[in-house]
Amino acid sequence: MQLDSLLQAVRPVDESPAPEIQAHLDNLTKPRGSLGRLEELALRYCLIRGERRPALPAKAVFVFAADHGVTEEGVSAFPREVTYQMVRNFLAGGAGINVLARHVGAEVHVVDIGVDHDFPELPGLIRRKVRPGTRNMARGPALTREEAEAAVLAGAELASGAADRGIGLLATGEMGIGNTTPSSALTAVFCGAAPAEVTGRGTGIDDEAHRRKVRVIERALEVNRPDPADPLGVLAAVGGLEIAGICGLVLGAAARGVPVVIDGFISTAGALVAAAMAPAAAGYMFAAHQSVEVGHRKQLERLGLRPVLDLDLRLGEGTGAALAMGLIEAGLKIYLEMATFDGAQVSPGNEA
Amino acid sequence: MQLDSLLQAVRPVDESPAPEIQAHLDNLTKPRGSLGRLEELALRYCLIRGERRPALPAKAVFVFAADHGVTEEGVSAFPREVTYQMVRNFLAGGAGINVLARHVGAEVHVVDIGVDHDFPELPGLIRRKVRPGTRNMARGPALTREEAEAAVLAGAELASGAADRGIGLLATGEMGIGNTTPSSALTAVFCGAAPAEVTGRGTGIDDEAHRRKVRVIERALEVNRPDPADPLGVLAAVGGLEIAGICGLVLGAAARGVPVVIDGFISTAGALVAAAMAPAAAGYMFAAHQSVEVGHRKQLERLGLRPVLDLDLRLGEGTGAALAMGLIEAGLKIYLEMATFDGAQVSPGNEA
Repeated sequence: MQLDSLLQAVRPVDESPAPEIQAHLDNLTKPRGSLGRLEELALRYCLIRGERRPALPAKAVFVFAADHGVTEEGVSAFPREVTYQMVRNFLAGGAGINVLARHVGAEVHVVDIGVDHDFPELPGLIRRKVRPGTRNMARGPALTREEAEAAVLAGAELASGAADRGIGLLATGEMGIGNTTPSSALTAVFCGAAPAEVTGRGTGIDDEAHRRKVRVIERALEVNRPDPADPLGVLAAVGGLEIAGICGLVLGAAARGVPVVIDGFISTAGALVAAAMAPAAAGYMFAAHQSVEVGHRKQLERLGLRPVLDLDLRLGEGTGAALAMGLIEAGLKIYLEMATFDGAQVSPGNEA
Repeated sequence: MQLDSLLQAVRPVDESPAPEIQAHLDNLTKPRGSLGRLEELALRYCLIRGERRPALPAKAVFVFAADHGVTEEGVSAFPREVTYQMVRNFLAGGAGINVLARHVGAEVHVVDIGVDHDFPELPGLIRRKVRPGTRNMARGPALTREEAEAAVLAGAELASGAADRGIGLLATGEMGIGNTTPSSALTAVFCGAAPAEVTGRGTGIDDEAHRRKVRVIERALEVNRPDPADPLGVLAAVGGLEIAGICGLVLGAAARGVPVVIDGFISTAGALVAAAMAPAAAGYMFAAHQSVEVGHRKQLERLGLRPVLDLDLRLGEGTGAALAMGLIEAGLKIYLEMATFDGAQVSPGNEA
């Protein structure tokens, strides 16, 4: 797969069936519009799939794991080895994303796209390591353009493979100690914001570490001078491998007409890069939830997305996306399974 | 069952195990508090049940249906016969609540507590009709105290029966053309608000009908002069039979230590009456969602509840409550199924 052909394959969602789909929603036994966002989710799902009567989708979450050279600047509350330890936890089924994906009936796929650890043979681990973690972006580019592109294409290929297997709803997830730092840097670049405006506390750093984190991001932007008109260059300069993988998963999903649920702050950073590369990709996204992380609101505004949930989550891994998948499926069941006024012999109303 | 003994059986939730439960949540493989409201839902569930390791609950939604004499004032966009038509739709499995309850694996129980219709034998219909609809509250009391009490006790007995059958999570739902009108009246009384502040558009009335609805509620309050210190009297004067049933379900759940998920505006009106009768009942409630209906925010403030979802819902039936049950269960699975730092050999963080 080539990046150019991938981007060209992302076409705008065809909105023309919307009136017909809405007419069916309006004919279900309920006041018009009274199921609010559930109706909106069902409509978007049908439009993205290009189907008037879609089947209930098989669902999959891809969790991209990678390390970050910038952790040597002391930007995280957790030590670097937690990335690979959590990969093992994902594979054993004991992490938050495992629990919540089981709850909604979604597969979890764990991708080593850049963990700084040599894993032995581990059943279930998808091996796509581009390199063992990024370089320290405070001192130079985190990745070469070639490395960033390779990670994007790996993500896109995973989306395409999932589409081939009949997955109808994808979600993004990630694990990478330190990865709110590049996410804030990407957000600053693509949203035109100052680092201090879009830098939060990640997994829970104190005031001093937070000030240090903001300065590290400022330094990374001074050193690398990323140009938002060159999204791949930005991703290479101040991004991360799991963020690039998410960017690719989103692009691959959009290219194949598969809706993709974007998790929290880090995933949305990947989605921002995807939309910068192919603006039509935003039409294939659902924003799962409003993260506690401070820069997330600006990201969602930029993408024109309204989150489905607001549960004060800040774990990542795809946890919010898994829950949102359950609600998208609920909306779709409303559309597919509810009785109509005629069918149930219920009198229609005289609504304003 | 007597109302007095029911109210005395509602004891405050024992909060003392909270530190121990929170300690377990903090030892799961995630940054402390990073699953936000999911953790809060799990904690509340355990406290209400009085169990450190509760089983995943069997779940049931009770949908109370009744008619309203006040509909002769032209306060609804739908004709009165829709109440019984929708009861048939519930029993046939074609309504919104059926779809969403199936989605989360909850039973649906449909209760005729005051529908103005003689139903033939209908499998699944729970027959607790107190009378065929209320009287027009704009001209006098909607119910006698005895009728209101009978409906409350019917709801409480259903909760108690569900607890006997092992249901561990209850939810409220309702159907009753015209029932936002008494709900607004109850909200005005218990929240000390003017009717215009807490009266919305229900299923979708126009501006003129909305002005009429506000005047009807003002008139009902002038005619009946309900006294908030006498909750049963208020319920009789300007309430409804399904609202009384919900009030009883909530009290019965609280008396048996079963958490109860309160749906939208009408259900929360029933919950307000319950909390006015037995203040400790509020501790057993989860607020499912933020309704579009204008008075709902004031109700939730009064009860000290924060809704789980905000999906622009305004259907009722228990639809929002069913979805919230799925999220409460998700929180509980996090608590019960996630690995600990020790168990998964993941290094703990150094969080602020």
